Amino acid sequence: MQKDLAEVERYLHDHIPMSKHMGIVVERADESCVVLLAPLEPNINHRETVFGGSASAVAILSAWTLLHLKLQSHPSPLRLVIQKSWVHFLEPIHADFRTICRPPGAEEWARFSQTLRKRGRARILLEARMECEDTLVGTFRGDYVAIGRDLP
Amino acid sequence: MQKDLAEVERYLHDHIPMSKHMGIVVERADESCVVLLAPLEPNINHRETVFGGSASAVAILSAWTLLHLKLQSHPSPLRLVIQKSWVHFLEPIHADFRTICRPPGAEEWARFSQTLRKRGRARILLEARMECEDTLVGTFRGDYVAIGRDLP
Repeated sequence: MQKDLAEVERYLHDHIPMSKHMGIVVERADESCVVLLAPLEPNINHRETVFGGSASAVAILSAWTLLHLKLQSHPSPLRLVIQKSWVHFLEPIHADFRTICRPPGAEEWARFSQTLRKRGRARILLEARMECEDTLVGTFRGDYVAIGRDLP
Repeated sequence: MQKDLAEVERYLHDHIPMSKHMGIVVERADESCVVLLAPLEPNINHRETVFGGSASAVAILSAWTLLHLKLQSHPSPLRLVIQKSWVHFLEPIHADFRTICRPPGAEEWARFSQTLRKRGRARILLEARMECEDTLVGTFRGDYVAIGRDLP
C-alpha cells in the first residue's frame, strides 16, 4: 500500500510540477478516498496563512486523483478535465492542511459510468473538504468531465 | 511605471512563494486593471496544458492585487481575504496565459467603500478573465472581504 502511495505521489510530482512545489504528500489514495497533505511553508501568503490559490489547487488535485483512480479499470484511455470549480474558504489556514475527497453516492456513480459507456463522455460533480488540525477550513466542489480519446 | 510593476511583482514573489514558482510576471498593475502573465512550463499538467489549480491561483492573485492597489489609500490597515471563488474552465490552456482583472462598476465600488468606512468591513465580488493567445479560456469570480485590523 505504501508503495502505491509513493507511486501516486511520484506521478503527481513528475507530471504536475506545481504539486511538487506545493510539497504535496499523498496520504491516502484508493477508490474510496484520496487525502493530500500540503505543508504551510511553501504555500504561505503575506499573512502567514495558506494562500487561497494553493488551497484550491490541492483540492482540485485531490478530486482529479480520486476520479483517475476510480477510472483506471476503464477499458479505453480517458481524458479527465475540470470544467467548473467552487471553493468556500471558511477559515484562515494557519498550519499544514489536508484535502479529502470521497466519491459521490453509488447511484450518482452508476449514472456517470453508464453515460460514459454509452456516450464516451460524462460529467460528474466531486466534493472535497479542506481540513487543518481536524477543523473544516474550506469546501470544494468541482465539475469534472471524462472524455474518451476518440471524441473531440 | 516599470519600476512600480517590478515592485508589485517582487512583493508577490517575496510574500507568496507560489507566485514565484508559477513564474508570475506582473504586466499591468494599477487601480483600473491588473494583468498577470503565467508561463506554461512551470504550470503544466500531465496533458501538456495548464494545470487548473495554477490557472485558478493566478486568477485569485490578480483579483487580490487589484483590490490591494485600490485600497492602498485607505486610512487604516486592512486584511483582504477571499471567501468564495468560482472558476469556469472554458478551454484547455496550451500556452502561456494571462489573467485580467478590472474593478466592478463605480456604483458597486461606492457601496463597498461606504460599507467599509461605516462598518470597518465590507464584501465585494471581483471578476477576472483568463486569456491564452487572445482567446478567452476561463472566467473567475471571487468574493473578497476587506477587514479593518481592529475587528475580529
